[in-house]
Amino acid sequence: MTQIDLNCDLGESYGVFKVGNDEEILPLVTSVNVACGYHAGDHNTMAKTVLSAKEHGARIGAHPGFSDLFGFGRRPIQTTPEDIYNFVFYQISALEGFCRLNEQTMQHVKPHGALFNMAVVDPIMSEAIAKAVKDANPDLVLFGLSGSELIKAGQKHGLKVANEVFADRTYQPDGTLTPRTSENALITDHEQAVKQVLQMVTTSTVTAVDGSIIPMKADTVCVHGDGEHALLFVKELRNHLTKQGIEITSIL
Amino acid sequence: MTQIDLNCDLGESYGVFKVGNDEEILPLVTSVNVACGYHAGDHNTMAKTVLSAKEHGARIGAHPGFSDLFGFGRRPIQTTPEDIYNFVFYQISALEGFCRLNEQTMQHVKPHGALFNMAVVDPIMSEAIAKAVKDANPDLVLFGLSGSELIKAGQKHGLKVANEVFADRTYQPDGTLTPRTSENALITDHEQAVKQVLQMVTTSTVTAVDGSIIPMKADTVCVHGDGEHALLFVKELRNHLTKQGIEITSIL
Amino acid sequence: MTQIDLNCDLGESYGVFKVGNDEEILPLVTSVNVACGYHAGDHNTMAKTVLSAKEHGARIGAHPGFSDLFGFGRRPIQTTPEDIYNFVFYQISALEGFCRLNEQTMQHVKPHGALFNMAVVDPIMSEAIAKAVKDANPDLVLFGLSGSELIKAGQKHGLKVANEVFADRTYQPDGTLTPRTSENALITDHEQAVKQVLQMVTTSTVTAVDGSIIPMKADTVCVHGDGEHALLFVKELRNHLTKQGIEITSIL
Amino acid sequence: MTQIDLNCDLGESYGVFKVGNDEEILPLVTSVNVACGYHAGDHNTMAKTVLSAKEHGARIGAHPGFSDLFGFGRRPIQTTPEDIYNFVFYQISALEGFCRLNEQTMQHVKPHGALFNMAVVDPIMSEAIAKAVKDANPDLVLFGLSGSELIKAGQKHGLKVANEVFADRTYQPDGTLTPRTSENALITDHEQAVKQVLQMVTTSTVTAVDGSIIPMKADTVCVHGDGEHALLFVKELRNHLTKQGIEITSIL
Repeated sequence: MTQIDLNCDLGESYGVFKVGNDEEILPLVTSVNVACGYHAGDHNTMAKTVLSAKEHGARIGAHPGFSDLFGFGRRPIQTTPEDIYNFVFYQISALEGFCRLNEQTMQHVKPHGALFNMAVVDPIMSEAIAKAVKDANPDLVLFGLSGSELIKAGQKHGLKVANEVFADRTYQPDGTLTPRTSENALITDHEQAVKQVLQMVTTSTVTAVDGSIIPMKADTVCVHGDGEHALLFVKELRNHLTKQGIEITSIL
Repeated sequence: MTQIDLNCDLGESYGVFKVGNDEEILPLVTSVNVACGYHAGDHNTMAKTVLSAKEHGARIGAHPGFSDLFGFGRRPIQTTPEDIYNFVFYQISALEGFCRLNEQTMQHVKPHGALFNMAVVDPIMSEAIAKAVKDANPDLVLFGLSGSELIKAGQKHGLKVANEVFADRTYQPDGTLTPRTSENALITDHEQAVKQVLQMVTTSTVTAVDGSIIPMKADTVCVHGDGEHALLFVKELRNHLTKQGIEITSIL
Repeated sequence: MTQIDLNCDLGESYGVFKVGNDEEILPLVTSVNVACGYHAGDHNTMAKTVLSAKEHGARIGAHPGFSDLFGFGRRPIQTTPEDIYNFVFYQISALEGFCRLNEQTMQHVKPHGALFNMAVVDPIMSEAIAKAVKDANPDLVLFGLSGSELIKAGQKHGLKVANEVFADRTYQPDGTLTPRTSENALITDHEQAVKQVLQMVTTSTVTAVDGSIIPMKADTVCVHGDGEHALLFVKELRNHLTKQGIEITSIL
Repeated sequence: MTQIDLNCDLGESYGVFKVGNDEEILPLVTSVNVACGYHAGDHNTMAKTVLSAKEHGARIGAHPGFSDLFGFGRRPIQTTPEDIYNFVFYQISALEGFCRLNEQTMQHVKPHGALFNMAVVDPIMSEAIAKAVKDANPDLVLFGLSGSELIKAGQKHGLKVANEVFADRTYQPDGTLTPRTSENALITDHEQAVKQVLQMVTTSTVTAVDGSIIPMKADTVCVHGDGEHALLFVKELRNHLTKQGIEITSIL
């Protein structure tokens, strides 16, 4: 039976600064990426989020990012591979503690924001991230953009990988995401977004912006929980996937 | 054979901001308290410090503190027991990762600065800290001021504890440290400092400022590595302890 | 004609972390306390907030707090008077730049959170704050809890002061606020809250929790903009004050 | 009479983290670039540094950087021109307060680290910085790498500019600094470094690494105070400049 994982970023609140609708999106996803206190999240939020994920039966992953709370980890910061290795390892270790405390086995690691995006095309950064994940725990699944350098680095290190695809972004003929600066970068029509996911899940292809059909492996779909609109879309997506006989389930 | 542990704070550098003489003090101590990125230290410093400690055969402990880099964790911050539990747990977990990576078993946890001092007399804070340590790993040794509330909380939770004493601080008749605001708070004479340690180690007593002899259990002595003077004192102390047939060794 | 100022905390968002309904509360108040980047706010939020306040004709004040983003400046931190003087001065100076840029004269300074609360009873902290305000600009108005040590320190330094009162908090016979830990600390009934403000504004007295009527000078009322409920209350308060012939106007 | 300014970064300590030998370098320079709390420095250090500079008669400038204490402002961070404008403006305003407090007129602004380096070739960043400086105070002098985009942006905005040159770095035929990754990037020989400065100051040219002589305007030389070696070099440089009849004096 064809399977797909739905993943979502969670636990991004910091102190009194609240972000997201964690309790509302949790029942709708199978994997959650928990912020670890560098770009967002804090020790209290992590404790609470791991507990919530456990209660909802969602699989937990670390969501390490740059130490840039102000920029929410979305701003590219040039740093060394050693620094990246160490801060990814630190963040995984911190979250792993809260997973153990709640008798949950951490499933995966998905880099956040600029770290995720830079790793798509940067084999050196990807190598540093993959090595940190493997050294933390070789059973962890590495989430990365489908077909990216990060996926390759994970495979090279013998890690299980999960190719991530997007419902609401268009693809270029070379398999990369259309940059947000382009007019046709986003898919705002729910129906079209669902259709794209179904194609990726069932045929392992996607139709690029020029109409060409290209290979696109889909192990997990990134969804969002901020706002009624986003929540509604996830519900629609779940319905369509289920109707097509696709099982929505976590990676492990 | 009588034994004593010598412990020292380590890994307190942050980015380009360098603190301490880690490489010079390391060969002289048996246990090191490694900063975990909240009041000092960072992921790179932690990685390097754990490796150095391993190479020198020193036992490693976590040194959690308030998230107050500017105040170096020395300023009392009023917060909740839940917050304390979570940030102590987070910091232990992060350092534990680097210990595992280097095949080192973490020996202990010693709270830093204001967290340490507040816990001396605060049973609620001590309870939160002891519980976090136990939940992280029940085999960890809890370091606290000799006879303090923290020691009691650790014992209550079934943790092995290490009563910490000071060579360079005088004691009140009730067993507390003379406040630094008092004239006679510090022992600046090396000979007298060594004598105080020998008394504590061999007789489990200390002579208070009023001349009375009071019980004072000594499992570990806190020493410092900042400056030639401090390093020289540690060497002297080691010589005297060894001459007296006291074994300088870690707690576990 | 009797006058009263309505003040509100503003500009508390940090990076992508959004706090408050600044645009909705702005038309309803006469003075705004703008966060300066230590406990909340950032340079971008400050730039935007000063511009918004100017457009709405609200008078601008600095809202300095402890450098504790995680605790939102609400946690008491023990530090020195020199440190307090310097961080209050720094924050005033930073905001003053944005006021000058927008051709606005800064009206006032109101310490935030724990800094405000600690200063109520601490003459040394109050002295440090008042001196920083005076040294920054002797024409600034110092906002403090009505009758507090901060008000006294401001007067001692020759500053114009504004006694702040609360609509939604009850008072003790000695003029202090009933601690939030007490059951009857908050006034949740709108009518009663409005009544309390009217009494304070028109008679300079308040009825304490034991029924006694005590002096309570009211120059400015602290209101909040977070949530529909809060906004509704401010509208009601404005209506009642206006009906009673009380002019709602800034301090200067 | 030919003149040259010697400038040095100052006030880079943060809390207990000490950086530099501020008191030793201060008597040797004519302009100081004071860190403003973003990449280094804090409100207490700023207060102290401005006072020290005043006592030594050095002219004071703001040294704004990225909000990256961990990276000491040396890591390129991608952000928007609005963000750059606002954080440069904020930092200038904060320091300007301490200058006013000490009756010192701020002389200049020199961006720090990655902000300085990125602005060399980036006209959009340079525009944001120059505009922030002008809006803060049109009398401020903008320090930038000799001939860089930042210098051009300053001139475009009608600011007085100071072309900065380096004693210990070699130049490419196009007037840029040889990248530190190249073998011949640094001039370690004191005599050669002094010779290069003399050539730049007296002839407004420099001999590039390929032997060609290119134009190089020199208004100020960047020197360092960290370490005996650096201090010694500044003394030698001062002696040689003075012997050649060149006046060492601030820009304004």
